[in-house]
Amino acid sequence: MIPKQTVNMTDVAARCGVSIASVSRALRGEPGVSPATRDRILSAARELSYVISPEASRLSGGPTGRVGVVVPRVDAWFYSTIVAGIADEFDTVGIDLVLCTLPDPAARHRFFEALPLRRKVDAVIVVSLPLSSRERTRIDQLGVPAVFVGGHRDVGARVWIGIDDELAARQAVGHLLRIGHRDIAMIQAGPADPDDTDTPWATDQARIDGFHGQMREAGLADPTVVTVKWSIDGGSRGMEELLSRTEPPTAVFCHSDEIALGALRTLRRAGVAVPHQISVIGVDDHPSADVNDLTTVAQPVRDQGRIAAQAVLTQLGGAATVSASAQRVNAATTLPTRLVIRGSTAPPR
Amino acid sequence: MIPKQTVNMTDVAARCGVSIASVSRALRGEPGVSPATRDRILSAARELSYVISPEASRLSGGPTGRVGVVVPRVDAWFYSTIVAGIADEFDTVGIDLVLCTLPDPAARHRFFEALPLRRKVDAVIVVSLPLSSRERTRIDQLGVPAVFVGGHRDVGARVWIGIDDELAARQAVGHLLRIGHRDIAMIQAGPADPDDTDTPWATDQARIDGFHGQMREAGLADPTVVTVKWSIDGGSRGMEELLSRTEPPTAVFCHSDEIALGALRTLRRAGVAVPHQISVIGVDDHPSADVNDLTTVAQPVRDQGRIAAQAVLTQLGGAATVSASAQRVNAATTLPTRLVIRGSTAPPR
Repeated sequence: MIPKQTVNMTDVAARCGVSIASVSRALRGEPGVSPATRDRILSAARELSYVISPEASRLSGGPTGRVGVVVPRVDAWFYSTIVAGIADEFDTVGIDLVLCTLPDPAARHRFFEALPLRRKVDAVIVVSLPLSSRERTRIDQLGVPAVFVGGHRDVGARVWIGIDDELAARQAVGHLLRIGHRDIAMIQAGPADPDDTDTPWATDQARIDGFHGQMREAGLADPTVVTVKWSIDGGSRGMEELLSRTEPPTAVFCHSDEIALGALRTLRRAGVAVPHQISVIGVDDHPSADVNDLTTVAQPVRDQGRIAAQAVLTQLGGAATVSASAQRVNAATTLPTRLVIRGSTAPPR
Repeated sequence: MIPKQTVNMTDVAARCGVSIASVSRALRGEPGVSPATRDRILSAARELSYVISPEASRLSGGPTGRVGVVVPRVDAWFYSTIVAGIADEFDTVGIDLVLCTLPDPAARHRFFEALPLRRKVDAVIVVSLPLSSRERTRIDQLGVPAVFVGGHRDVGARVWIGIDDELAARQAVGHLLRIGHRDIAMIQAGPADPDDTDTPWATDQARIDGFHGQMREAGLADPTVVTVKWSIDGGSRGMEELLSRTEPPTAVFCHSDEIALGALRTLRRAGVAVPHQISVIGVDDHPSADVNDLTTVAQPVRDQGRIAAQAVLTQLGGAATVSASAQRVNAATTLPTRLVIRGSTAPPR
């Protein structure tokens, strides 16, 4: 038998013959699971956790027992949810999570020049950052396994986990086209400061490529694109710019749900009815998307963090100790995205 | 001259004779600062940072150079913003942030029994968790300075940073009373699972105390309170319960903005006009509060994290090296809250 490196909810679910959702509910103390089933799940979790303890202590008894997680910032839903997914997995095996945030160009420069993680961690997870070749070299110079979440897929032989951002954009724009829109604009997220980095954010480029590709295939050339900062306020300004035109579009594809929320705020203040006058769609399925009845393309964010953490554990444990679930983490793991239809999109009048 | 332990934006602002807001904008590459001023600010920051380098390396050359940050979860706006504030300060002096999340009772139990941070960190910051006496003892047994953010103010001789939650509730309810509401209900956050802990969350208790106190002083006894899980869905369910009554209230005080967002979702789906039929107010000033035109009581969240980090640096540096700004961190630091009036509250019809 191949020793298991980490126990996850799939294992507990299999042990109890219940769904992963039930395991999740039971472990989180949420309703929807009978007391008997809950007891069974908690017992199995305890039992499996006991079984893997020796493995876990071996793992955390590595050179440092720590893994660095590098995110642009932690006070944004996407990044904090990725970190939560990583923490879920590390907690199971007792790995310490060292969090590095690079909120501005100065912090980023300091990080890559000083490499504060060197000799302090067994591996590193880099989230979303588009790395320059210099920065990539510096990550290599850490001399530990590196796993990448989001951003550029082109990470050489290293492990990458993310979504297909171009496809996500095509799913959103395809929905607008199918319900009859032709005059579709995009509010795109661009760098707040062009000096931030020479390397464009992969997500930004892929989503606008998907928008242009889908529009072109529908015979619609040169659609309107406004570029704003990736924030709620950016989305507000983008929609103001679109409303400033003689003929505003009938539908707007927003780079992300946060951009879309800002766009919705502007529409509300302007007294423009959504979706009757303008349809709006985003990407993410941010918790506020549901609150604001925003149609969007959902991506599994927490899972990206979880799978990245599993990939790290696999690399630290060596090929011989890879569990079935960890084996599914290949060099590039692309998670599916899907349309979530809510009330912010409708056929044009 | 007392050696400075950490340079913050106040120091840079003083050096350049500009506002802290300008320093913040310049360092973050945001617009609103002239190129000349920006260059001056960046130079001063570099210069001050150079000056403190020896101090910084002395600090990070302590037993471990790491500080543990314990939060219930990181994928929630309040907690991730606190962590971001802590990271801001630690980054300046090169302290590593070890993040511990305790998302469920099992993880919490594991954490306090195994004390995974023991001998791994120089100090610990505990965010929001209401500790049982057993858990408090375990934190003491870490044998390092502990700083508390939010939750119970009663942390003995240790440093506590937070807001006055009872006052925040009074500010919200006071606003509703002043504009003429008498039939005011509260949607309160309670534990998802009563088995979670024997110790109630201080925030929950203080906010309901503030609600009852303010109502009583207005001569309104026994107002309606519904208790739900602290989440957007919890808020939705709470409002459904209020709408199920023969006479729904004219105004609803929500424990937090996330609860209020869920309440607003239910009202939108029910076709109840806000604020004309029901006024809604929250607490926090969550980024989505502005998007949803939600009146609220704002609290400075990132600052709570920053000040907690400064308090840790003070304790690690010893009393002799306390800078002027760090000296302001006393045993208990209560940050101000303030009303933010938006469109979700109005006089009753």
